[in-house]
Amino acid sequence: MTTTVSHAAARYAAADWGTSSFRIWLIGETGEALSERRSAEGMTTAAKTGFSPVLEQHLEAMGAADTLPVVICGMAGARQGWVEAGYLDTPAALSDIVRHAVVVPDDRRDIRILPGLAQRDAASPDVMRGEETQLLGSVGALSGTRLVCMPGTHSKWVRVADGKVERFSTFMSGELFDVVSRHSILSHAVADAGAFDGTHPAFVAAVAEAMANPAMATNLLFTVRSGQLLHGHGATEAKARLSGLMIGLEIAGAATMTADAQTPVSLVASGPLAGLYTQALTAAGLQSQLVDADEAVRDGLAAAARALWPASVQTLSAV
Amino acid sequence: MTTTVSHAAARYAAADWGTSSFRIWLIGETGEALSERRSAEGMTTAAKTGFSPVLEQHLEAMGAADTLPVVICGMAGARQGWVEAGYLDTPAALSDIVRHAVVVPDDRRDIRILPGLAQRDAASPDVMRGEETQLLGSVGALSGTRLVCMPGTHSKWVRVADGKVERFSTFMSGELFDVVSRHSILSHAVADAGAFDGTHPAFVAAVAEAMANPAMATNLLFTVRSGQLLHGHGATEAKARLSGLMIGLEIAGAATMTADAQTPVSLVASGPLAGLYTQALTAAGLQSQLVDADEAVRDGLAAAARALWPASVQTLSAV
Repeated sequence: MTTTVSHAAARYAAADWGTSSFRIWLIGETGEALSERRSAEGMTTAAKTGFSPVLEQHLEAMGAADTLPVVICGMAGARQGWVEAGYLDTPAALSDIVRHAVVVPDDRRDIRILPGLAQRDAASPDVMRGEETQLLGSVGALSGTRLVCMPGTHSKWVRVADGKVERFSTFMSGELFDVVSRHSILSHAVADAGAFDGTHPAFVAAVAEAMANPAMATNLLFTVRSGQLLHGHGATEAKARLSGLMIGLEIAGAATMTADAQTPVSLVASGPLAGLYTQALTAAGLQSQLVDADEAVRDGLAAAARALWPASVQTLSAV
Repeated sequence: MTTTVSHAAARYAAADWGTSSFRIWLIGETGEALSERRSAEGMTTAAKTGFSPVLEQHLEAMGAADTLPVVICGMAGARQGWVEAGYLDTPAALSDIVRHAVVVPDDRRDIRILPGLAQRDAASPDVMRGEETQLLGSVGALSGTRLVCMPGTHSKWVRVADGKVERFSTFMSGELFDVVSRHSILSHAVADAGAFDGTHPAFVAAVAEAMANPAMATNLLFTVRSGQLLHGHGATEAKARLSGLMIGLEIAGAATMTADAQTPVSLVASGPLAGLYTQALTAAGLQSQLVDADEAVRDGLAAAARALWPASVQTLSAV
C-alpha cells in the first residue's frame, strides 16, 4: 500500500465526501483498495477552501496519475457543495444512480459526482446523499425485499426490493442524542459517563421501553434525570439509557415500514454503532445481518466506476 | 396597587421561585394580590447572590412590614436551592403539601418553603417542584377524577382524583423544542420564523401526525427540514410544525394515563402556550378547561398560607 504501488496499479479514485469528513481510496484493477486517506475536510470546510484543491492534494499525496478518473458520492453533490448532483426520485433502481451522475468541469480528469435520492410525497418528504451509494454497494445486486438500517447522525431506514428503493425514512436519532446530551438538562446526568456497549442492562431495558411505548418518548427521556435523582443511577447508566431510548424509538418507527416482521434487515454500520444496533435489533426481535459501512460505500463507488468507465475498469479487470 | 396600600393591608407575601424566574406578591386579607414584582433572579442567580438578599430587596421595594410572613414554592426548595424542602411521595393529597413545608431560619420573619412531589416507582420515576402548588390552587378542592396538563419547559401531566395526586409524568417537550430549534440541523429551517398560533395549518396537521404515529417522532422531526428542501415550506411553517409535533407527541403519551377519553382535562397555562395547547387538545378530541397558571400558583400559595397561619390569615379574612 505504498505510494509507488498505488500510482502504478490504480484504475480510478473513489471518494466519500460527507458534511464533515472526506475519505478517498485508490482502487486497483480487481477492485481492491490500494491506498486510503481520511481527513476532516468535509463539505463545510471544502466550501471555503475550494473542493478541487482538497481533492488534488490528497490524490497527489497518494501518487495518483494526473488523468486518473474520480467518482465521488456524498455532500460534494449538494447545492452548497462542489457541483450540484440533484436527486433521483423514489421509487428508484439503485443501478440508475450512475446514469444521473454529474460531470465536474476539470481540465485533466474525468470527475463524477453521484446524485442523492429524494422521496417527494407530501406526507413523508425525505432525502439522502451518500447512503444511496452504500445501498448500491451492499444490497444493489440482491433479490427479494429487505429493510436496510443505516445508523448515524441521521439514521436511514430503507425498504429495498430487487435492487429498487421503494421508500425510506430518516430518523434524527444520532443528532438528538448528541444535542440532548450536550445542551439539555440531561447533560448533567450523562456528564463523565464511561464507555458502554449494547449489552449494558440500562441500554437493553431502554430499547424495550421505547419500543413498548413510543408515545411516552419525551417522558422516558426525562426519566434519565429523574432516575438519577430518585434512584441514584450513575452517569454511564444514564448515557446507556439515553442511547437505548433513541435507538428503541427509531426501531419502533422503522418497524412500521413493513407489515412482515420476518423481512430481513441489513445493518450497514461500522464502529460502536454496529454493536449497539445489532443488540437493539435482536432485542426488538428482528434478524439482522451486518455489512461494514466502509466496505459498502467503497463497493458502491466501485459499481459506479464499472458502469461509468467500462473500458478502462472492466476491461482492465479482466486482464 | 401602590406601595402604601400594600404595606398597610398585606397579610403575607407569596413567592414562586423558579429556576430562572422569581415572582412575589403581597396578599391582602381577602386573598387579593395587592402588589406584584417579577425578576430574573431565579434559583440559579440567587444561589450565587444569596436567597435572603433577593427576597428582602423585593419585600422592601413593596413596602412590606419587617415581620410579614412569606410562603414560597418552587426551586428555592431544591437541594441546590435555599433550604431543601424535600418531596412528598405520591399518591399524595394536595392538602398535605403544607404539612411538609420547611421553615427557613430567619431572625424576623416566618418564612416557609413548600415541598415538591416525587413519584418513586422504579419504572416511572418523576419529580415536580412548583407545579404541586399550582395543582393545589387549581384543582385541590375539586371532586372527581381529572387530568391536569401543565405545559412548559418540562410539561407535567397529572392524574388527580378528589384532591389526591395519583400519578404524573413529565415530558421534555418545551426543552426539546428549544434545544432542537437552536442546536440541531432544524435551526436553519426555523431561523427567522414569524409568529404563529394554534390555528396555523402546519401546527394543526403536525399535532395530528404525531398523535397518529408517535413511533415516527424523530422521523417527523426530520420532515421539518426535508419538507423545506423538497416542498419549499417556509420558516414559520417549519416552526409551527416543530411545535405541533412536540405537543402532539406529548398528548399521545399523556392520553395513555387514562383509559377514559371522557376524563376532563384542566389546562393550567398562561401566555402563548395556553392557546397552542387549547387548540392541540381540541384537535386531539379532548375537552379542556383553561386555568390561568399565574392565578393557580397564587391561589395555591394562598391555600398554603391559610393552613400555615390560620390565626393571622383566616381570622383577618373574616374581619
